[in-house]
Amino acid sequence: MSKLEKTLKMIKKGDIESKEKAQERLDNLTKPPGSLGRLEEIAIKLAGIYANPFPVIKKKAHIVMVADHGIVEEGVSAFPQEVTTLMTKNFLNGGAAINVFSKQQDADLFLVDVGMKDTIDDKSIFQHKVKKGTDNFLKGRSMSREEAVKAIEVGISVTEEAIAKGANLISTGEMGIGNTTASTAILAVLTDKSLEDIVGPGTGLDAEKLNHKKEIIKKALEKHRADPEDPIDILSKVGGLEIAAMAGCMLAAAAHRKAVIIDGLISGAAALIAYKLHGDVLDYMFASHISAEPGHIKMYQILVLKPMLDLEMRLGEGTGAVLAINLIEASCNIINKMATFTEAGINK
Amino acid sequence: MSKLEKTLKMIKKGDIESKEKAQERLDNLTKPPGSLGRLEEIAIKLAGIYANPFPVIKKKAHIVMVADHGIVEEGVSAFPQEVTTLMTKNFLNGGAAINVFSKQQDADLFLVDVGMKDTIDDKSIFQHKVKKGTDNFLKGRSMSREEAVKAIEVGISVTEEAIAKGANLISTGEMGIGNTTASTAILAVLTDKSLEDIVGPGTGLDAEKLNHKKEIIKKALEKHRADPEDPIDILSKVGGLEIAAMAGCMLAAAAHRKAVIIDGLISGAAALIAYKLHGDVLDYMFASHISAEPGHIKMYQILVLKPMLDLEMRLGEGTGAVLAINLIEASCNIINKMATFTEAGINK
Repeated sequence: MSKLEKTLKMIKKGDIESKEKAQERLDNLTKPPGSLGRLEEIAIKLAGIYANPFPVIKKKAHIVMVADHGIVEEGVSAFPQEVTTLMTKNFLNGGAAINVFSKQQDADLFLVDVGMKDTIDDKSIFQHKVKKGTDNFLKGRSMSREEAVKAIEVGISVTEEAIAKGANLISTGEMGIGNTTASTAILAVLTDKSLEDIVGPGTGLDAEKLNHKKEIIKKALEKHRADPEDPIDILSKVGGLEIAAMAGCMLAAAAHRKAVIIDGLISGAAALIAYKLHGDVLDYMFASHISAEPGHIKMYQILVLKPMLDLEMRLGEGTGAVLAINLIEASCNIINKMATFTEAGINK
Repeated sequence: MSKLEKTLKMIKKGDIESKEKAQERLDNLTKPPGSLGRLEEIAIKLAGIYANPFPVIKKKAHIVMVADHGIVEEGVSAFPQEVTTLMTKNFLNGGAAINVFSKQQDADLFLVDVGMKDTIDDKSIFQHKVKKGTDNFLKGRSMSREEAVKAIEVGISVTEEAIAKGANLISTGEMGIGNTTASTAILAVLTDKSLEDIVGPGTGLDAEKLNHKKEIIKKALEKHRADPEDPIDILSKVGGLEIAAMAGCMLAAAAHRKAVIIDGLISGAAALIAYKLHGDVLDYMFASHISAEPGHIKMYQILVLKPMLDLEMRLGEGTGAVLAINLIEASCNIINKMATFTEAGINK
């Protein structure tokens, strides 16, 4: 049995008994029932994940998957491909937004090369290159089916390493110039929405280049006719290596009963792939923010997840996911630290 | 000159030069321009507030204003009036949601009795009772004009004390059974929206009691015909002592160039009063969350503020405001800690 198959077999639904006990506790705390809204839903979901009515966030890991995209040669991005490498060096030097936010939220940062064109010789980067960037999916497949599975398994391995180091809350992010194009193509295979409604400007395309991006995705979709019921087919035809790896992170988190936070459009595409591989992964997933990319909200509709933050962010790196950590911690604090009506001497 | 008049005289717009410099810095950081969305707007606003292109949150104070409402005898709340006292004791014992969240965000908690019916003999509570709860505003005024001004000045004094202790970020919250009724009445005076669209269930009214609440507000509005251009008239006719005091907090924060975070419906009503007293107070205000109360969004429309969080919370106490602290700190961290393109060796 492959690592992926083994991981999928381990995934079970959240623990119902713990969720019920958490709900009971929440209803006895000194506040009008339900008045902490979605934070209460989050607390209950966490109880199901950890199979514990008093969920506690012990350690946080933020995993950034880095890879390149052959489709960039079609002119779909506002930035050239080498920015993937330059920004990854910036991550290593601690100067990017994700460094600043991870430090603020006390999350350990895991940087993973799952498919960069260049290689950065630095012991702080996890070297798991499956391939030197995807191929241009307008000309052929992004990658083989085997490579797609291998990239998912990179995500599983790195997540298991983070868990072994004590993390029970995993957040996911990425760097890869061109990856809103791959992510939007994945969404397009899985939805009946028109490309008009889901293709966005990524890091900053103007109207003309945005139209060009739509055309490229349209042609690629027609060429490949990926099978919406076969997530490995979708990944290998129009996907990205970091998207596959992020899906692996989500599956591993679910398999090991840890919570996982998804970020923007690319993380959302990975969540769609993970969900298609095993529906129960949703019991472990939290939506952090709604990004400025138009396709993002359609992803949440498919996943039946509601974001916590609406800050019009569109940076990637997992910046939204990491900001949501504080809210998830607040949810845990409610259930563990608030007094009950009885303790406070108030008759309900 | 009264304390209120003096405070109003001190309020000036945010510093434009610092805002421009902050914008320039943000555009040079290693991210696509504008890609951190509203966090960038927040950073720029903070630069204007502190007159510093590199704004820093030094110390945080959360001020909870407590008062009772005579209108409760009309059956407008799901909870009896004594819950104001019981919950305030719970705050003093550290068992409420606001204790848990303030501790998580490292904010100093200031508990202020500005108009409780009961008095709690505890040195941790700031004793500034203007009156033992408002009068029933269906029968007469809530309070006199003098009492309204006095309650605003309590807010000014306590905020100045927090600032003297080093706070440069003030968040505002309240406790007062019956205060969604007063807050909705204030909003109703200031908007052309029908009561149908703005009266909500507060801490948990059923449909029948919700209709009753609408009726009471309708009758009170017809009785008093408060002058929408005279915020002291509005406060004294249908307002609350904690609402007046919170407005004072906002005015004092603006006068002393400190940032202030508003919370839910009651905090929003206070923000409307503060705004009517001095329009430039908006340059110092941040909207934290959009609450489940239907009137709340109308308040933001008047104030032209956008909330950061959508968590369907309706607890009060300033719980949403305190949760937003982490996001405001993230905004500061961006501008102070991220590398520029030049520093990272990337050509824009």
